[in-house]
Amino acid sequence: MQNIILLMHCPDQKGIIAAVTDFIHHYKGNIIYIDQYVDRINNTFFMRVEVEANGGSASFSEFQTNFNNSLGVQFGLKCDFYLKNHRPRMAVFVSQYDHCLYDILAQQQSGRLHCEIPFIISNHTVLQTISDRFDIPFYHIPITKENKLEAEQAQLKLLKEHNIESIVLARYMQILTAQIIDQYPQKVINIHHSFLPAFPGAKPYHSAFERGVKIIGATSHYVTEDLDAGPIIEQDTVRVSHGHEVKDFLEKGQDLERLVLLRALKLHCDRKIMVYNNKTVVFN
Amino acid sequence: MQNIILLMHCPDQKGIIAAVTDFIHHYKGNIIYIDQYVDRINNTFFMRVEVEANGGSASFSEFQTNFNNSLGVQFGLKCDFYLKNHRPRMAVFVSQYDHCLYDILAQQQSGRLHCEIPFIISNHTVLQTISDRFDIPFYHIPITKENKLEAEQAQLKLLKEHNIESIVLARYMQILTAQIIDQYPQKVINIHHSFLPAFPGAKPYHSAFERGVKIIGATSHYVTEDLDAGPIIEQDTVRVSHGHEVKDFLEKGQDLERLVLLRALKLHCDRKIMVYNNKTVVFN
Amino acid sequence: MQNIILLMHCPDQKGIIAAVTDFIHHYKGNIIYIDQYVDRINNTFFMRVEVEANGGSASFSEFQTNFNNSLGVQFGLKCDFYLKNHRPRMAVFVSQYDHCLYDILAQQQSGRLHCEIPFIISNHTVLQTISDRFDIPFYHIPITKENKLEAEQAQLKLLKEHNIESIVLARYMQILTAQIIDQYPQKVINIHHSFLPAFPGAKPYHSAFERGVKIIGATSHYVTEDLDAGPIIEQDTVRVSHGHEVKDFLEKGQDLERLVLLRALKLHCDRKIMVYNNKTVVFN
Amino acid sequence: MQNIILLMHCPDQKGIIAAVTDFIHHYKGNIIYIDQYVDRINNTFFMRVEVEANGGSASFSEFQTNFNNSLGVQFGLKCDFYLKNHRPRMAVFVSQYDHCLYDILAQQQSGRLHCEIPFIISNHTVLQTISDRFDIPFYHIPITKENKLEAEQAQLKLLKEHNIESIVLARYMQILTAQIIDQYPQKVINIHHSFLPAFPGAKPYHSAFERGVKIIGATSHYVTEDLDAGPIIEQDTVRVSHGHEVKDFLEKGQDLERLVLLRALKLHCDRKIMVYNNKTVVFN
Repeated sequence: MQNIILLMHCPDQKGIIAAVTDFIHHYKGNIIYIDQYVDRINNTFFMRVEVEANGGSASFSEFQTNFNNSLGVQFGLKCDFYLKNHRPRMAVFVSQYDHCLYDILAQQQSGRLHCEIPFIISNHTVLQTISDRFDIPFYHIPITKENKLEAEQAQLKLLKEHNIESIVLARYMQILTAQIIDQYPQKVINIHHSFLPAFPGAKPYHSAFERGVKIIGATSHYVTEDLDAGPIIEQDTVRVSHGHEVKDFLEKGQDLERLVLLRALKLHCDRKIMVYNNKTVVFN
Repeated sequence: MQNIILLMHCPDQKGIIAAVTDFIHHYKGNIIYIDQYVDRINNTFFMRVEVEANGGSASFSEFQTNFNNSLGVQFGLKCDFYLKNHRPRMAVFVSQYDHCLYDILAQQQSGRLHCEIPFIISNHTVLQTISDRFDIPFYHIPITKENKLEAEQAQLKLLKEHNIESIVLARYMQILTAQIIDQYPQKVINIHHSFLPAFPGAKPYHSAFERGVKIIGATSHYVTEDLDAGPIIEQDTVRVSHGHEVKDFLEKGQDLERLVLLRALKLHCDRKIMVYNNKTVVFN
Repeated sequence: MQNIILLMHCPDQKGIIAAVTDFIHHYKGNIIYIDQYVDRINNTFFMRVEVEANGGSASFSEFQTNFNNSLGVQFGLKCDFYLKNHRPRMAVFVSQYDHCLYDILAQQQSGRLHCEIPFIISNHTVLQTISDRFDIPFYHIPITKENKLEAEQAQLKLLKEHNIESIVLARYMQILTAQIIDQYPQKVINIHHSFLPAFPGAKPYHSAFERGVKIIGATSHYVTEDLDAGPIIEQDTVRVSHGHEVKDFLEKGQDLERLVLLRALKLHCDRKIMVYNNKTVVFN
Repeated sequence: MQNIILLMHCPDQKGIIAAVTDFIHHYKGNIIYIDQYVDRINNTFFMRVEVEANGGSASFSEFQTNFNNSLGVQFGLKCDFYLKNHRPRMAVFVSQYDHCLYDILAQQQSGRLHCEIPFIISNHTVLQTISDRFDIPFYHIPITKENKLEAEQAQLKLLKEHNIESIVLARYMQILTAQIIDQYPQKVINIHHSFLPAFPGAKPYHSAFERGVKIIGATSHYVTEDLDAGPIIEQDTVRVSHGHEVKDFLEKGQDLERLVLLRALKLHCDRKIMVYNNKTVVFN
């Protein structure tokens, strides 16, 4: 056995926690984190468990199979199993803004964002100097209205070749089509530069300025086919005033964007998020 | 001369500040507060001035007339003049929620909200016990779909009889029609229980819960004929999580609502707000 | 059996949750809330459980005795038992500031603060008009350097006569001595108008202004014999600038104070706080 | 004439603004930003002005001399003059934490932090790989109790050789002595990982954890000879709970530290800060 993380859910019922902890102890696992949440409206039980291996001889796949065959059947438990020391392989999609990219690369380099970054994809070339600084391969795939589907095919080919598990849209100014989204359900993370559901779509800072809001925000969410309507992972806001112009909104907003995106990525990479009914349960 | 507050705006141009301060000195006024803001996109100048009378012999109306005839003409200055010790007469409209009403009455009583509250109007009777505690007249004017316009006529009659200058909708669950709004332009202040423009209209906490947001908000704004689309005065937000149900949103939200509404009312009563292009300039 | 709330802690060990839930089910209790926290540094387990009675025939005292005799012995569990529909009897101590008092009375009246308020004690008379508005007895007990211990004896007599369980110091400008504090361990709640441990003692807004801070705060804590050093329940902060004078700090701070105090009082009255090593565990 | 920024202060008196704006117009300057603040307690006037050159023939030094000889004499105005396109030369001091360093270099590279960074000084070597990524010279100057004054002499030599104007201590874990501080008054910027004045000195996150605070903070300030007691430029806070350990405080705190430090550096480099009575006036 190795150190593992379990994310599970099922209809709420008596005895789940005891059964799960007993099962883990049986495999000589040591529970170092356990947290659960019950959605009383939908009567659904959610739990996240971190297990430290402690000399048990079962393989990871054996553990999974037995878990599903016993607890899975008994309680209707649906569980995702992760090896703790496997860092998800994440592709970074960017366009021309560099603030989120810098933060992702710096935090990954310094060991605070637990993932691999096999490459960066961009529809522009301006950020290549940054990928060079960090010695990360950079693929320039230009996108036009006409070539979009083909360009995405080229992206998909790279994603498959490099066994990419997650994608972060770090202010990537293109809308992904279903041919990519469908292959990465709850695995594509976007940062939107507004407090969703206010100001979806293009130019939210301009719209916020026009409306005269006193607070702006940023939202990180999983991408679904509905634009800017996927499950929200994290949001934050900052105060503005009549004295701020659009460029001030943009500057203040960029600090929010990178913070909010990084928090979401860390939660995702550390397997702390469950998605349910187009919402997230975040164990934090 | 008495102590006065001036709120003025005009096309931006050289020499306005000097001309205004000279004018005030000429009337023996002592400037104890002066702040200006220039909207460089629309090339518009805004200024708020507080003047302490210092023995000048001119009357308030003489001061106004001369100001308008000289500076008004010279710079195209549009100015609102307020006597500092005149507290605006404000009617409070409520339905069944008491949290904003309590805050308004307590803050007014303790001298932190500078207004008179000649009466409370409600389409329900449940809050009458509170108005009784504070010895403020309470008028119960029931509203149905059928009698709405007549009921508003009864409200208008009261407003006129008591020389009401401003109206606060303290979680008043009715939509005012143009027959009232038009008579109190930029004088009717509402608190909406969402971070506008997200979740306008009814049941915003339910909508926010459905959407799975991680932050909820409250917005105080001047009422215009466009529902929940008037100039925003103040907003604030608070963090929620997947563990919060609608009733938790509501409870956390109520603290936001009363804070945000009170801040807006204080700004309004202290003559610190100018409205312009459906936005507010707030001198704070 | 009636609806009850349990707050318990013990050395962390296997099987506690299962044993407690089994015990409750045995008494036909229905668990409607359960949350636990493990302090891994001190190896201590904390749990809060809300139980809905479901027809069990045991009395409350029987339940307690059996719980202590079985689980108490087996796990070293220390448990506080509360009847859910018993609202703690809380005395309010005030001096001359009214903002916290208004909030406490309004929230209690509207049913959002779950306690009884048998009386208000003050060393001044200015707030008596407010207690009159809310029909709550007001006891004026003047305090001087010389009479302090006797005055406290008079306070204690009232506290005992009215079976007071908790005390809130709602900007009460006197320091309680051990003769009161010792009788109400973890039952006296204070609001201090700074972000503790910064600026303990008198005149924190003045000190904050002198130091030129950019943020001010408020702190609610349980009172111990060490001035302003008891277990912190809740804190919050608000931004200030060079443009704010002490009076602005005071005004902004008062909104913080009442919010922070009320949040702390609600947590306390709803039995959501455990005290441990001069810190609080807050189940929220 | 070139584009310039003026920071000035003097005893408050009539006619300063008009005199300054007239003076600037006389030199064909176009005022694109003007903001003033009056400290009414100390009766002191502060003003920040940004001037766009508009074809005036006077040299920068001529402008300064004439300004001082006329307005300086007339009003007692003390003014600092800056060329807008001169970016201050700033040395970065670090030890082993990389989060602030990454942010400084990324923001400087992307043009959002307006300064030159001629080199990085460290008492350790671990961050050299980062300076290499950004092609910035890295000087390793080890420091022990015994060699401290000599080591600082080596630092001073570098600072002088490279015409350094400002120093940022980006989590530099050494205390500068007067021999450096005295040469850079109000030019050395530190980030302290607490909400000052709470928890000055070493290990503030540990102290905050011990105290059981519910909010932690970060503070950026100018360094003076009093440890952690210099003029505060910027602060911010974030919520923590009983469930967070010291390592969580540290992780949450690091995001605060880099944000707060960068905001302070931007204000400093953009000449938006005036220091007065050990406080800052920030024009923002």
